[in-house]
Amino acid sequence: MASALRVLGIDPGLTRCGVGVVDVRADRSASLVHVGVVRSDAGMPVGERLAVIAAGLRAVLDEHRPQVVAVERVFAQQNRSTVMGTAQASGVALLLAAERGLPAHTHTPSEVKAAITGYGAADKRQVQTMVARVLRLDALPHPADAADALAIALCHAWRRGDPSVSTGSGALTPAQRAWADAERAARR
Amino acid sequence: MASALRVLGIDPGLTRCGVGVVDVRADRSASLVHVGVVRSDAGMPVGERLAVIAAGLRAVLDEHRPQVVAVERVFAQQNRSTVMGTAQASGVALLLAAERGLPAHTHTPSEVKAAITGYGAADKRQVQTMVARVLRLDALPHPADAADALAIALCHAWRRGDPSVSTGSGALTPAQRAWADAERAARR
Repeated sequence: MASALRVLGIDPGLTRCGVGVVDVRADRSASLVHVGVVRSDAGMPVGERLAVIAAGLRAVLDEHRPQVVAVERVFAQQNRSTVMGTAQASGVALLLAAERGLPAHTHTPSEVKAAITGYGAADKRQVQTMVARVLRLDALPHPADAADALAIALCHAWRRGDPSVSTGSGALTPAQRAWADAERAARR
Repeated sequence: MASALRVLGIDPGLTRCGVGVVDVRADRSASLVHVGVVRSDAGMPVGERLAVIAAGLRAVLDEHRPQVVAVERVFAQQNRSTVMGTAQASGVALLLAAERGLPAHTHTPSEVKAAITGYGAADKRQVQTMVARVLRLDALPHPADAADALAIALCHAWRRGDPSVSTGSGALTPAQRAWADAERAARR
């Protein structure tokens, strides 16, 4: 495999925290390394729930050694009842990255949707479909939090890369074709 | 000194995180152990800021060994521009407490004001004045974040204690008098 960037994407949450690790190469093709969800019990005190989330994230960091961490940005305007727990979980994710000396970045949901599908208001199904295609998965990743984590990781790798993509070659991989299609859509 | 409960109060924030440690005895009298503010540079990435806050909180936990941690509860409705950072800092505070096996509790601003001044809509100056009186400080604690952290710690110790307070004795300490006054006000 050519030199790749390994990205950990995190869809923060207290009840379900999505985690996805992908390797993304310079040609924007990507492969799945790990996907999962860290869960904590809603009946536990918040601090203990955050400790469970932190332990789960540390296990992924230890096992898969990502080079960069991307976390979905949380807004106060989102679903009121869970937004504070989501923000707290995102804080824990950003803290763990910083404590390991890893760069961490946040991306808004519409940035992620635009990077993956070419359309910032895409629905979850469109995002999941594109993530499955890019990573050559046999089925849509689920639950949604896990799919979102993969999308965040891909978004980060693609947004930081060179925006000029070769789309003229006849030897595009499926992932390259998917990306090229998405990018053409984004330019419309 | 009689057996006392040592409480760490935290007023969470990214730019200024107030920390206050108090010893509170069964008669509700209290003494100051430590007060301060952990600051992080607004120019740093959020993860690194949270790591600075975490290091400051760990130093206080190591040096003063509180038995319980009380954190001000953050609401999405509060000041929009900083509320996400505040929530993230509160998540880090709750995580650190849980990872040390310390019980951690959150209290709303109006619970804190009511516990300290007897009036849930008290202004910051009233809270600071009462905190200074209870802890027999020569001056009002400042900055406000530090004073708030002390108020949160006192609130927690008092709310969990026996609500019946002896106010008939002629030998009340200034702290006991302050508490008795506040409690009478709360009953009105």
